[in-house]
Amino acid sequence: MKHQDLIFSNDVASHLDALVKRYSPSKLFVLVDSNTRECVLPQLITESKAITQAKVISIEAGDTNKNIESLMHIWTQLVEGGATRKSMMINLGGGVVTDIGGFAGATFKRGIRFVNIPTTLLSAVDAAVGGKTGINFHGFKNEIGAFCEAEAVIISTRFLDSLSSEELLSGYAEMLKHGLISNVDTYNRLLAKDVANIDTEEMLQLLEESVMVKKRIVEEDPTEKGIRRALNLGHTAGHAFESLALQRKSPIPHGYAVAWGLVVELILSHMQLKFPSIELTRLATYIYENYGAFHITCDDYDALIEFMRHDKKNDSANAINFTMLKQVGDIHIDCIASEDDIKTALDIYRDFMHI
Amino acid sequence: MKHQDLIFSNDVASHLDALVKRYSPSKLFVLVDSNTRECVLPQLITESKAITQAKVISIEAGDTNKNIESLMHIWTQLVEGGATRKSMMINLGGGVVTDIGGFAGATFKRGIRFVNIPTTLLSAVDAAVGGKTGINFHGFKNEIGAFCEAEAVIISTRFLDSLSSEELLSGYAEMLKHGLISNVDTYNRLLAKDVANIDTEEMLQLLEESVMVKKRIVEEDPTEKGIRRALNLGHTAGHAFESLALQRKSPIPHGYAVAWGLVVELILSHMQLKFPSIELTRLATYIYENYGAFHITCDDYDALIEFMRHDKKNDSANAINFTMLKQVGDIHIDCIASEDDIKTALDIYRDFMHI
Repeated sequence: MKHQDLIFSNDVASHLDALVKRYSPSKLFVLVDSNTRECVLPQLITESKAITQAKVISIEAGDTNKNIESLMHIWTQLVEGGATRKSMMINLGGGVVTDIGGFAGATFKRGIRFVNIPTTLLSAVDAAVGGKTGINFHGFKNEIGAFCEAEAVIISTRFLDSLSSEELLSGYAEMLKHGLISNVDTYNRLLAKDVANIDTEEMLQLLEESVMVKKRIVEEDPTEKGIRRALNLGHTAGHAFESLALQRKSPIPHGYAVAWGLVVELILSHMQLKFPSIELTRLATYIYENYGAFHITCDDYDALIEFMRHDKKNDSANAINFTMLKQVGDIHIDCIASEDDIKTALDIYRDFMHI
Repeated sequence: MKHQDLIFSNDVASHLDALVKRYSPSKLFVLVDSNTRECVLPQLITESKAITQAKVISIEAGDTNKNIESLMHIWTQLVEGGATRKSMMINLGGGVVTDIGGFAGATFKRGIRFVNIPTTLLSAVDAAVGGKTGINFHGFKNEIGAFCEAEAVIISTRFLDSLSSEELLSGYAEMLKHGLISNVDTYNRLLAKDVANIDTEEMLQLLEESVMVKKRIVEEDPTEKGIRRALNLGHTAGHAFESLALQRKSPIPHGYAVAWGLVVELILSHMQLKFPSIELTRLATYIYENYGAFHITCDDYDALIEFMRHDKKNDSANAINFTMLKQVGDIHIDCIASEDDIKTALDIYRDFMHI
């Protein structure tokens, strides 16, 4: 696995300019979406020489635009902008921009360099590190993609001001997950915070700790053959909630889906591995109080199970695979749950969520 | 770089069945084009248990179909066929099938296993080994793609009977190139043969020798940062001929383009590195006698140079990069030629080709 520069700093422009100087790309491109084009690009243009010189490629914001049409638009802009193998892309945005921009970079002329500058908490903690790139296809999330790491990732908290509390909470759910799979100390520190009132420097420190949990796991298993599946905690159930919400035509933020997914999967962990009920209750309460509830009835169970079955993480077309915990930090990957167990877990989830 | 099984045998079915047994994929798919669906698939279905059980995905034959539409068709068929990360694809065909099938496999759910069974001489010697996958895009060949090796490649000469002499010669040009970059013995053995009259077993042996030249170079430099560019000999000029022919709406076989490209680039090698004129004349004569000539006038020079400039192999947008030889087997990569040199070389090419 190639070396990746992980830079934690709110002085984004000078780090970026130094990177561009080091790689001296033949041409430089910056990918933005309609949000970062308006809110972030103007700030950086005044500070960064590199950004001033870069050709801007723009896509529409939103997960529904992480599709083949946007990808083809990016490829076309690279061709028409005269990109060569020594050109470089800067992906400036949230998870949609880093995912699709990373995939465009991974595949243009079989791979050019790219740098990620995540602008949301969720993409900072999750999407910009780890090399998962891709697009949604045929109704499935991230169905097409590649494992390809950014040359460098510049992680800051200076763009978080413009985020809604919903967006902050969405990112914080992934940080809670990293806490759960690392150790009790980190986890407790996160549960003690009020997300809405963390200052920029304190958040940058929590973020660094959280990203390093992920980085260590990814380095051990870049292509997700084993321990990397620890990072899937909360995501099998979470993706199912997300897909159901899409089907209902009222999408939910990814991090919220993960938060509720964590509750379901820790219930399964309690059922199968005796994950302590006191910890389960503490998490479920924190989630309910901060994230509210995703409403389901028992009529939704079959659809949810069908979505879980289709998850990429399932090796065979039939079994449903989960990452579970025996304790905070004690990870068990490749746990199989039966449909009956899942239905029981969804019943208990509804109790915790007062549905 | 992961280990890749290279199997040289005309008993394709039993090797394939053994591979499928070893990997026991959750689902098996076989990608064919309209040619191999008709001429090759029926043979293998009677012999191979794996092929009988595989879901067939079919695309139209021809390089113009190595495009985003065919790729989306393959991805869709994989989704609808219930492919998981543990599914496997068999790419049964020439270079179009192994290139696009490899790219589909490399990107579906961020990568599933695939096995290549090349059915043309060109794909056996060139396309099926080395991990270059991709599609044409926006008028440029292989503009989008990935480096991703097949799990295994089964190389045989049993499907060559159905090929025209044009197709055989097209593959043989790449074998000549491998001879030129390896050693005088191999090269002389190739120049002594009459392509139309080589028997199946003798060809399999020559093919094995030739593929191993490529394999050694690719293993040393999988992502083409250095010595792998040796394999580009003949290809900068060759691709330009190919693009010009496309522009004229009378496409030429890739191997023919390489054959003529070899002549141009050995002329440049002679001009810059004193590649021996006796060897140059011997090659040019062999090419002219077997492949005829690609007709150009000096009015085509600017267009050809423009195509060369756009070649993926150029690191910067301005320089034109060639692989050259000082002797047979003595490779110099990253040689730069001026426009004037290239024009002179094209003049001499026309002399050799009696144009």
